[in-house]
Amino acid sequence: MPSISSKGLAMPESPIRKLVPYAEEATKQGKEIFYLNIGQPDIKTPQVALDAVKNNDLEIISYSHSAGFATYREKLAKYYQKVGLPVEAEDIIITTGGSEALLFAMGSITDPNDEVIIPEPFYANYNGFATSAGVNVVPVQAKFEDGFALPPVSEFEKLITDKTKAIVICNPGNPTGYLYTKDEMDQLSALAKKYDLFLVADEVYREFAYEGLKHHSVMNQEGLEQNAIMIDSVSKRYSMCGARIGCLVSKNKELISTAMKFAQARLSPPTFAQIASEAALDTPQSYFDDVIEEYVDRRDTLIEGLKSIEGVEVAKPNGAFYCIAQLPVADADHFAKWLLESFDKDGKTVMVAPAEGFYSTPKTGMNQVRIAYVLEKEHLLEAIEILKAALKKYNEIHGAS
Amino acid sequence: MPSISSKGLAMPESPIRKLVPYAEEATKQGKEIFYLNIGQPDIKTPQVALDAVKNNDLEIISYSHSAGFATYREKLAKYYQKVGLPVEAEDIIITTGGSEALLFAMGSITDPNDEVIIPEPFYANYNGFATSAGVNVVPVQAKFEDGFALPPVSEFEKLITDKTKAIVICNPGNPTGYLYTKDEMDQLSALAKKYDLFLVADEVYREFAYEGLKHHSVMNQEGLEQNAIMIDSVSKRYSMCGARIGCLVSKNKELISTAMKFAQARLSPPTFAQIASEAALDTPQSYFDDVIEEYVDRRDTLIEGLKSIEGVEVAKPNGAFYCIAQLPVADADHFAKWLLESFDKDGKTVMVAPAEGFYSTPKTGMNQVRIAYVLEKEHLLEAIEILKAALKKYNEIHGAS
Repeated sequence: MPSISSKGLAMPESPIRKLVPYAEEATKQGKEIFYLNIGQPDIKTPQVALDAVKNNDLEIISYSHSAGFATYREKLAKYYQKVGLPVEAEDIIITTGGSEALLFAMGSITDPNDEVIIPEPFYANYNGFATSAGVNVVPVQAKFEDGFALPPVSEFEKLITDKTKAIVICNPGNPTGYLYTKDEMDQLSALAKKYDLFLVADEVYREFAYEGLKHHSVMNQEGLEQNAIMIDSVSKRYSMCGARIGCLVSKNKELISTAMKFAQARLSPPTFAQIASEAALDTPQSYFDDVIEEYVDRRDTLIEGLKSIEGVEVAKPNGAFYCIAQLPVADADHFAKWLLESFDKDGKTVMVAPAEGFYSTPKTGMNQVRIAYVLEKEHLLEAIEILKAALKKYNEIHGAS
Repeated sequence: MPSISSKGLAMPESPIRKLVPYAEEATKQGKEIFYLNIGQPDIKTPQVALDAVKNNDLEIISYSHSAGFATYREKLAKYYQKVGLPVEAEDIIITTGGSEALLFAMGSITDPNDEVIIPEPFYANYNGFATSAGVNVVPVQAKFEDGFALPPVSEFEKLITDKTKAIVICNPGNPTGYLYTKDEMDQLSALAKKYDLFLVADEVYREFAYEGLKHHSVMNQEGLEQNAIMIDSVSKRYSMCGARIGCLVSKNKELISTAMKFAQARLSPPTFAQIASEAALDTPQSYFDDVIEEYVDRRDTLIEGLKSIEGVEVAKPNGAFYCIAQLPVADADHFAKWLLESFDKDGKTVMVAPAEGFYSTPKTGMNQVRIAYVLEKEHLLEAIEILKAALKKYNEIHGAS
């Protein structure tokens, strides 16, 4: 029998999805589940995007340009310019989700056994893309106690070797909700320039910055033009996760022409989804105002609710729609399974994502979970009550930690 | 300045697309171009697929299952069963085009520096996927004189090392149009079993087998269940190249569960395109009958036309919609550029794909071009006349080879 590759064996299972079989079993048993484990918003996709697809009059769904529709790239560049980012159409390659943009970036800047430094906890699929490229993720730990602020530059410098090719950040952060300050972005930029590294910024949650705080894009870092790579996506901005449209953006022409060779090998990004994404650029500002207001309300509801539970602590997020909560349990993974397998409150339970999977350092964040505030307020309130009752019962059975 | 990876530098440029700048310039000059260089059919997408997208009533375009819609996989399995392939829904992972299925297969079965043997000439993007995975393509040469039939098994055996992980075939072949016989499939199967290799069969042109010849799927090779991986796509079957939906199919459960980890890392295949692809399974048989009849007519027109040109030889294709033609020129790449840059017949010219890029062995197929018969008969006839006049003029200027 032929054998699976070492790479295939090493590919991590998604920590967000590994509890799915337990959830499926719980559903079979008739339990209702509040899904706080995944960043799938319940916000409606903008009508203008849905209508564009419904009203398309294509007769042949043919390949598009490998970099995406020229019209879409032009319009997207204008959108970036409007929000203050100096991006031209030629700096953009449209990709199949932010995921593919990360793949193209990894392929263009790393070889097998190279290293990328990523502040942890980080979006777990970065591990998958790194493994798939044969690249080693070197974590630098951001601390719960500091609200997941950028670790000191000296911590990064300790880890830089001649194999280091890039620093990857997610801003605002998934799973932390942390929004980097201008000073932190300047520190990262200086570091990238000093060591000739790429600074890859996953900015798919850019619009989700709260309390009037400003998002600082890697594309606005002066003098960093040759080092900066921005990853973006329509998934969260327009609640269009299933479209699978993202983009890779850089002013570094050699990087773009290299990434284009990866883009050509896979031919083109999906046509219908590009139609939706191009139209989505006409989404009225009122849509975003409503969405941000909704998320701020949800965030406040969630944070307040979680803090009201004895033994629970939360790092307050200023962006995205996640937070990391510390629970009064020794093993959040065990607790999360138990929630699905052995617990219910009036036939209902909650699904959360154990945070361990978002850390690269083993046995870290064992008592933490990521909670996505992607459900409406009423459901969040109910989910918090369930979590409260569950923690009480769990610790009665398993002993408080 | 940070540096591009060796892998990125090594990524081949698509031979199909590298002439595009010349074509763009020719278009600017007002020339009309007949595009015989790319497998983009002018056949209409089935109405049932277009309608499904236009009539969808989704309000949130959310992530789908990483393996694709369950309903789509069930229905797709039934389609395979109907055409005689023993495929169940659990054997299928829906991918973003056949391209992604190839990426997942490569990632699951090869590590950097491993080798895959591929009969050349082959679909040029296999080089891109191999480079991107750090894998070496070892070509075994199929001969123009033999109509690109399978090279002797002994030629494969000479190339097998402990690094060899798979044999990859395209059946019917792009760029050759060659359709493997049952005996050839049996030889390949015995070889794969003898050396514990995967046999990866790209069968995206399955329906395009002509003159009543039968297509022999890798999924029908008895006893090969653990070695067989089928790559498929809706792109050509339903003239839906831009949808970007394909699939990876195998009875090898370890392979499927490994590929699923790659699938989870990129979250899900595109939603609108899945809607179209699921609906496309209801395309009436009359659509295919008409399409096949049309392609047979085009093929016959093209082959007869090419043979009427002095010095041109063609390997007659029995499947897909490509053929390799040998031209009376020393350097087909130079000729193809010249066609766009320096030639026109009444303001019109032709774009072909130099075959050199489909060979892995350097300086092979230098006098060959791939011609796609994806245009309607009338245009094909005109394109042949242009090619005839061009060859005459080219050899007057550059001297016949």
